[in-house]
Amino acid sequence: MVQLFQRKLFQVLPNPPCETTSTFSSVTNAGHFISLRPFVNKAGHEDFPFEWCFGGISKYSQASQLDADTAQIIFTMELDTNTIRKVENVDKDPVTTKWATWPSGDVEETGEVFPFGKDKEGVKFRELWQPINPDTYETEQKFNILPRSADASKFASIALYVNNSEFHGLVTIVGNFVQGFLHKKGTESMSFIRAAFNGSKYEYSIKFGPNVDVFPTKFHNGVKVGEKVGVFEVIEA
Amino acid sequence: MVQLFQRKLFQVLPNPPCETTSTFSSVTNAGHFISLRPFVNKAGHEDFPFEWCFGGISKYSQASQLDADTAQIIFTMELDTNTIRKVENVDKDPVTTKWATWPSGDVEETGEVFPFGKDKEGVKFRELWQPINPDTYETEQKFNILPRSADASKFASIALYVNNSEFHGLVTIVGNFVQGFLHKKGTESMSFIRAAFNGSKYEYSIKFGPNVDVFPTKFHNGVKVGEKVGVFEVIEA
Repeated sequence: MVQLFQRKLFQVLPNPPCETTSTFSSVTNAGHFISLRPFVNKAGHEDFPFEWCFGGISKYSQASQLDADTAQIIFTMELDTNTIRKVENVDKDPVTTKWATWPSGDVEETGEVFPFGKDKEGVKFRELWQPINPDTYETEQKFNILPRSADASKFASIALYVNNSEFHGLVTIVGNFVQGFLHKKGTESMSFIRAAFNGSKYEYSIKFGPNVDVFPTKFHNGVKVGEKVGVFEVIEA
Repeated sequence: MVQLFQRKLFQVLPNPPCETTSTFSSVTNAGHFISLRPFVNKAGHEDFPFEWCFGGISKYSQASQLDADTAQIIFTMELDTNTIRKVENVDKDPVTTKWATWPSGDVEETGEVFPFGKDKEGVKFRELWQPINPDTYETEQKFNILPRSADASKFASIALYVNNSEFHGLVTIVGNFVQGFLHKKGTESMSFIRAAFNGSKYEYSIKFGPNVDVFPTKFHNGVKVGEKVGVFEVIEA
């Protein structure tokens, strides 16, 4: 099932919550996922204006339904800005997360990471996610909420992937919403895109990094699995 | 400044947060306010399917700016379902609340109430509010977020009020969004409306109580302060 979420809240317990980013997470029908988390206020983050970005093809996340309102997802990060940037004290092991749908329709994610080692005290976190109708997405503030009863099977769901000697990257398209993560191997160089398809062209809200030109510039309409689009290969269409 | 907020989260500390209602709070330019908080799942609440509803004309709330991102609002409830229904252990004193705008644009409200008396331990709470563009409001799930940079001076802002021997009530109209609270004095009978103006007619998502017919059925377009609309008087237009 295609999913597009806007994050409304991030809390590292026992601290109070806040939301300093414009975070959207997209998941395709096949389960390929990208989450881009740029800071709203870039001051102090000019060199790398993201709290975190990660992504992976479907085998890097394992979802199971715990009950009607609760799912468990175990994430391993295939593409991870913290790993690539060699950020210290970051848990690189699979992260087990619990996703509870509230009566309102929003989804609370909770989990625990172990940045100081599995034998040390963990760090509990909470995130709140608002489901978005990906066909209504125009800008980071202009979209409709997706009602819980909605049929999510009608939305476009496309993924493009590269993992060659030079590049490692993923692009996901859900409905009108595009996100991409591209790492130039052997370096800390990363590029990101976030865009909306307005019916005739793509409006970019994120176009960051030295290799943004390596991303495809057309995503929808008639791509076929196995087709090459520049260095990327269509893995879902 | 006209304000329309959707609540995303309610937390009574130290318990975890949730959101079991479809809560929208509207505030007119003049500061007249209504918050209706119906449960999403009515089961078990058939007699009174609201967590809480309250409202008041402007003199019942006192706002002051603490800094660029933080405001204080002291609420006294003119109309309050808990008071009218004689719910036990409810703080009827003015409630001091702090409103902190996060970088994301959402607003965190925190405060403390003293349901067991001012000399007893208080109960701390947190709510998270998403600002809505009231001209885009069509349904409880179909609207656009209001960017922080937006000009809120252009939206319709109308209030109608009654406080006679029989009825005590308020209707607020902000942009396309209507809410009303009506109490039949001397009884526990209350009526509520929530509606969207779609350009030609009103679509009601809440129409509750024995006196919904006492509410006006047209709100926009050419009402004047001092004009009577049924038992209501226009106090802002």
